[in-house]
Amino acid sequence: MKDFTFYNPTRIEFGKGKEGNIGQYVKEFGVGSVLVLHGSDRIKKDGLFGRIAASLEEQGIGFETMGGVISNPLISRVRDAIEVVKQNGLQGILAVGGGSVLDSAKAVAAGAKYDGNVWDFFVGKAEVKEALPVFSVITLAATGSEMNPYGVVTNGETQQKYPIGSPLLFPKVSVINPELMASVTPEYLAYSAVDIFSHCLDLYFTASFLPVYTAALIENILESVMRTTNVLMSTPDDYDARGEFAWAATMALNGNTFVGVEGNTFDTHMIEHAMGALYNVPHGAGLAVVLPAWMEEIKDQMPERFERFARKIFNVADSEEGISKLTQWFRSIGAPVTFAQAGLLEDAVDPIAENAFGNAKLWGMEQTYPKERIAKILMLAVK
Amino acid sequence: MKDFTFYNPTRIEFGKGKEGNIGQYVKEFGVGSVLVLHGSDRIKKDGLFGRIAASLEEQGIGFETMGGVISNPLISRVRDAIEVVKQNGLQGILAVGGGSVLDSAKAVAAGAKYDGNVWDFFVGKAEVKEALPVFSVITLAATGSEMNPYGVVTNGETQQKYPIGSPLLFPKVSVINPELMASVTPEYLAYSAVDIFSHCLDLYFTASFLPVYTAALIENILESVMRTTNVLMSTPDDYDARGEFAWAATMALNGNTFVGVEGNTFDTHMIEHAMGALYNVPHGAGLAVVLPAWMEEIKDQMPERFERFARKIFNVADSEEGISKLTQWFRSIGAPVTFAQAGLLEDAVDPIAENAFGNAKLWGMEQTYPKERIAKILMLAVK
Repeated sequence: MKDFTFYNPTRIEFGKGKEGNIGQYVKEFGVGSVLVLHGSDRIKKDGLFGRIAASLEEQGIGFETMGGVISNPLISRVRDAIEVVKQNGLQGILAVGGGSVLDSAKAVAAGAKYDGNVWDFFVGKAEVKEALPVFSVITLAATGSEMNPYGVVTNGETQQKYPIGSPLLFPKVSVINPELMASVTPEYLAYSAVDIFSHCLDLYFTASFLPVYTAALIENILESVMRTTNVLMSTPDDYDARGEFAWAATMALNGNTFVGVEGNTFDTHMIEHAMGALYNVPHGAGLAVVLPAWMEEIKDQMPERFERFARKIFNVADSEEGISKLTQWFRSIGAPVTFAQAGLLEDAVDPIAENAFGNAKLWGMEQTYPKERIAKILMLAVK
Repeated sequence: MKDFTFYNPTRIEFGKGKEGNIGQYVKEFGVGSVLVLHGSDRIKKDGLFGRIAASLEEQGIGFETMGGVISNPLISRVRDAIEVVKQNGLQGILAVGGGSVLDSAKAVAAGAKYDGNVWDFFVGKAEVKEALPVFSVITLAATGSEMNPYGVVTNGETQQKYPIGSPLLFPKVSVINPELMASVTPEYLAYSAVDIFSHCLDLYFTASFLPVYTAALIENILESVMRTTNVLMSTPDDYDARGEFAWAATMALNGNTFVGVEGNTFDTHMIEHAMGALYNVPHGAGLAVVLPAWMEEIKDQMPERFERFARKIFNVADSEEGISKLTQWFRSIGAPVTFAQAGLLEDAVDPIAENAFGNAKLWGMEQTYPKERIAKILMLAVK
């Protein structure tokens, strides 16, 4: 067992209608006003925004509203939001949406208490020393951002998709109401499932030491995601399946899977962030392309781990068959597993590899992943 | 999925030598002085107390020391400790020991900020409104008290073994260093394993709704406990096994196993607390006696759950065989599974049933567990 610190103070309020108490949750933390940050205007049409606004008003919480956060969220929008927060002296950020909105909210929370350029936090030029409290009501389960202190934002000018992180960025309270996710499209459900797989498998296949307990926890998350995704593809309003899927997403990146683990890295994310930064590929779609190719490339480094995966997840004996079964499953839920399926041309391999190598350098992985090796992995997905 | 709130702000510092940083952890919370609460004087002989004292002194944290907390800890000792805390104006409690010390520390933390009788919190006469911060360095992994807001203390005068609980009683920081547990006797290792089983199975066999994910999480904890206990019985200083065992103990009662669960109760604890209160049976020993008998009594209420248990944990098809395999395993690690093995006479059945029925009333379980049914379960263990 590697030494570790486990600390996760986020309170999860899980269940039907809990977004209706959001004003109360915010008030408990002594926060008198918030920026309600969201993506499209769908939440204004479907009544979610109305319920949240009513709850805030009932508790006397003032708020401003800003939408327009897109998938692969942009630092420019974060800057706009920081302006609004500063001008209005808002005391907290309430994210309503999926991972992009939450990730942006964290950047806004840190940036609002910082006099410099918020991008400094992403490129390692500054550390978060202070941040506004973040709250969330999630409408999509995938990134785990509702219960972790990380965010990923894209800088359009520099074409960098980079992470921010600080213990100060744990959301205070996150509402997970599975009912709010019943309208997620099959496409985004598939992307979400792949994202969760990738959070788990990056760790599972790179850890130099993985306690048996932690391996089994990860396998449990994967089993849960596969089973519930299959249910939800035909029965989108199955509340229990939606709920279990959501909790699996949260567990996949809230610290539990890191317990006692040594030497893990975020390889597929390192590569996928380049796809998102350059070609605006949806995160889960990019990961679906990268993950099986990456597994193919590294499978001989950890034969026992790959055999265990094949046996535990797909009940087959052979590593290669395990990878093939995973690819088949991705296909079956409609996730793209080739460049072409993700709308990318072979020409994109070189720029993606170049950009990903930039990530590798920032994350201290340039020894393991020279540009040529990244390109080799990507080529496995060009078919 | 049942609605739930997940909130667990305890920070776990897990690893070799981490007790040597305890002064720093305490200081981070602005606490300038603590009561170091412990059990026997073993920690003074083996150097642990010295390392902790040195760390506190290094950080300028003043402290008083009080030992003498016994297994099935007494409210009288808690009252002594509250006196010392009040007289010295101490600002926090640092528990060094196992579950009994931690549970006592929580009662002291609440009692030190309360003008009335600390036992009020146990019998529902008062609610914890304020408490001193609790820290811990654990030397035995079993109760999960290091990462939850509960404690169980015995009132010798009234012969009641009752729980206290409040979100204010989550430890701020708990140190789990598996090395400190290498000297746990095989007897107490067995009791600890049984305690963890009981935390898990009380829930597993009573929940009216148990998400598949949560069922599998519990099975993972049980598998981990069995495997590592078997290793530790022959190789007590296997660090990884000790570490995995410790984390399984923590996970069994830190909120994760309650996720989405409906209708669970603490049946074996309700009965065992009576054994501890009346006959001072070690908690894990009492549970080893009660658990298989209780399973026998209730097995027809949830046939699918018992079949799943038999299949997943012991790879056998039949419920009855699952119970029998569990009993055999308890025997194999030296845990008592009959009244006689726990040093109890058949005469004890009636007083235990009477006392346990008192718990059933306090916990709202008197409908399900009239005294006669409790006696019937106990009689199954008299053989």
